[in-house]
Amino acid sequence: MNLNPFFTLDEYQTRLAQTRQLMYRQGIEVLLVTDPANINYLSGYDGWSFYVHQGLLVLLDRPEPIWFGRMQDSNGARLTSWLSDDSIRGYQDHYVQSNLRHPMDFVADLLKEFKADQRRLGVETDNYYFTGQCLKSLQANLPQATILDANLLVNWIRLVKSPAEISYMKKAARVVENVMQVAVDTIEAGVREGDAAGEVVKAQLKGTPEYTGDYTSIMPIMPSGIRTSTAHLSWVDREYQKGDLVLLELAGNVHRYHAPLSRTLIIGPPPAELTAVASGVIDGLNQVLDFIKPGVTGEEVEGCWRKAISGTKVVKESRMGYAFGLNYPPDWGEHTVSLRPGDKNVLTPGVTIHVMPGVWLDEFGFECSEPIVVTEKGCECLVSFPRELIQK
Amino acid sequence: MNLNPFFTLDEYQTRLAQTRQLMYRQGIEVLLVTDPANINYLSGYDGWSFYVHQGLLVLLDRPEPIWFGRMQDSNGARLTSWLSDDSIRGYQDHYVQSNLRHPMDFVADLLKEFKADQRRLGVETDNYYFTGQCLKSLQANLPQATILDANLLVNWIRLVKSPAEISYMKKAARVVENVMQVAVDTIEAGVREGDAAGEVVKAQLKGTPEYTGDYTSIMPIMPSGIRTSTAHLSWVDREYQKGDLVLLELAGNVHRYHAPLSRTLIIGPPPAELTAVASGVIDGLNQVLDFIKPGVTGEEVEGCWRKAISGTKVVKESRMGYAFGLNYPPDWGEHTVSLRPGDKNVLTPGVTIHVMPGVWLDEFGFECSEPIVVTEKGCECLVSFPRELIQK
Repeated sequence: MNLNPFFTLDEYQTRLAQTRQLMYRQGIEVLLVTDPANINYLSGYDGWSFYVHQGLLVLLDRPEPIWFGRMQDSNGARLTSWLSDDSIRGYQDHYVQSNLRHPMDFVADLLKEFKADQRRLGVETDNYYFTGQCLKSLQANLPQATILDANLLVNWIRLVKSPAEISYMKKAARVVENVMQVAVDTIEAGVREGDAAGEVVKAQLKGTPEYTGDYTSIMPIMPSGIRTSTAHLSWVDREYQKGDLVLLELAGNVHRYHAPLSRTLIIGPPPAELTAVASGVIDGLNQVLDFIKPGVTGEEVEGCWRKAISGTKVVKESRMGYAFGLNYPPDWGEHTVSLRPGDKNVLTPGVTIHVMPGVWLDEFGFECSEPIVVTEKGCECLVSFPRELIQK
Repeated sequence: MNLNPFFTLDEYQTRLAQTRQLMYRQGIEVLLVTDPANINYLSGYDGWSFYVHQGLLVLLDRPEPIWFGRMQDSNGARLTSWLSDDSIRGYQDHYVQSNLRHPMDFVADLLKEFKADQRRLGVETDNYYFTGQCLKSLQANLPQATILDANLLVNWIRLVKSPAEISYMKKAARVVENVMQVAVDTIEAGVREGDAAGEVVKAQLKGTPEYTGDYTSIMPIMPSGIRTSTAHLSWVDREYQKGDLVLLELAGNVHRYHAPLSRTLIIGPPPAELTAVASGVIDGLNQVLDFIKPGVTGEEVEGCWRKAISGTKVVKESRMGYAFGLNYPPDWGEHTVSLRPGDKNVLTPGVTIHVMPGVWLDEFGFECSEPIVVTEKGCECLVSFPRELIQK
């Protein structure tokens, strides 16, 4: 049992109570949590062990969730979660990546032990860490259970952040301010892209003089030149050249809470078309930040953006923002609110959104984003960094 | 179409031919590849876009695989893969993380377009990026298809590395030698753990004077003190103290190919129990490295280890090594060969194994590993770094 978790036991208990309420409303008696962020959110468990099957079992009628994972990670659960020893169950190593048995066989046995194998079992159907085989193994092992879709059940609770969570995100925001400045200072003609990426990640982990940073769920996205025409490329083994455009989608992380930030840099004078796109995007972003307040929906925010860019050079098909916060690789997004047509979710105080109007055209791209928290009267930008096309 | 992929078109074609041969033998007419490493292996595609659903469709009777992914990543497929434009299909953004539609609906439509919706479809059932919902959506959309388990089909082809692949792993080995030396040089009493982690990751990306490095699939595992009693913890926000034990499981990466390496460091003189465990592990590791040669099985290698440590202070339940190579987060292991009882896989030249006899006891842990390639007569260590308990 971790005596110094990142949140009070009261806060963890509140999260669990909210989870049980949603389970109860959806007719779920047992919830199998496999999203590492949701595991952390409910138990505090933290470790790079999600590459093997692991999770929590939340029962409506057992006070503590049950952590299960590989035996060699059990001490990790003891050291990082608030759970007591009898809620931590490690499985033998012969379940790991085996053709003969699957960790969900172990989970089915656990459910039998807790007399929950004939109950209504919710699973996070579309989570990375709940594979097709997990579903098939549970179906085969638990013929008398009813398996229900509980995808994003805990994610929706995570949508509204507590003051303690926001304080970590503000610490992460201080980190990403440093990180972005390091990127801007480092990138210039003749510097190898990998060396710049190295300085960026060093700044992420070094954090600030007061506290260090944690790893982010996405490694630096920092393509240059023609590679800026798409959204998710990194550095390559070459030196920056005069005239290079560089996208920078970076983040800071503290206690697994993110502050993402995007900017665009050009080495030399910008072409007129880029200046026009940059101006359109930044103006649209400013209008959106003025528009966001409690009560507006995801699609209304996008509508404000769409109106702002009409008649400009900016063309954008994809969503222009999403909820973010606590997460593990491969994503810092929470998969709940998206700022796009059709999104009926209503923003409320404590919701955190990465307002990310990235544009990827056939020849080049441009990004300028802000991570925000919805407040009582509007929204607050977590990061302070000049909102401009950066020219070196 | 990428005119400068990391491998020759011939090599990609050979991989595809091997894939089709296995498909044919297993009665699979269409293979849905969702593992990002397998996507890269067959097409060259590289990007941090695996947080949304994407993949390849390999048909027995179409020369090129079909890449599908988010529209904004299509240019990434054009820039990094060898596929021609008509094999690159981006889906609209409203498929992304939506309650109303799923990217596998788009895949089902693609299969209909290619008249493959009534065929025998293999899926990577237990891959992180093939969720329970992917399976359910395909089942619902393709009532006339036969959905078959093709888990690890491509991974088994990846097991034996080509000379070009081994050359990248040797480059990654040069990187991790630098990385480990930076860790050893940096860690000392009074240094913040996050600052040391920052130097480590900087060294990973900086690479060597001749070439830079790429991101590794696992961030540095470097716990200290009691946190060494478990396998997958990272740094925390504290300063190292005299007497601290530190586990270092690090890697270098070049073109997505890894060289992992583990060592253990202590700040000050080691207690007798640690010295005994270290000596037992290193002696066992040396015996295993002498033992490995073509023809031995995974379990025979583990048997050699088990015999070597009998009568020593070393206790180890978990597997003592696994195949590794090309990969994306969250794992650099390939999920094929494991060095453990029951593993009947026969090692052959070109197989690369992380021989990883990590020990995690209740009070402390010890790790000392070697990444190796099986050769014609034995095995070759990819990395050159002193095999010892490092004392600072």
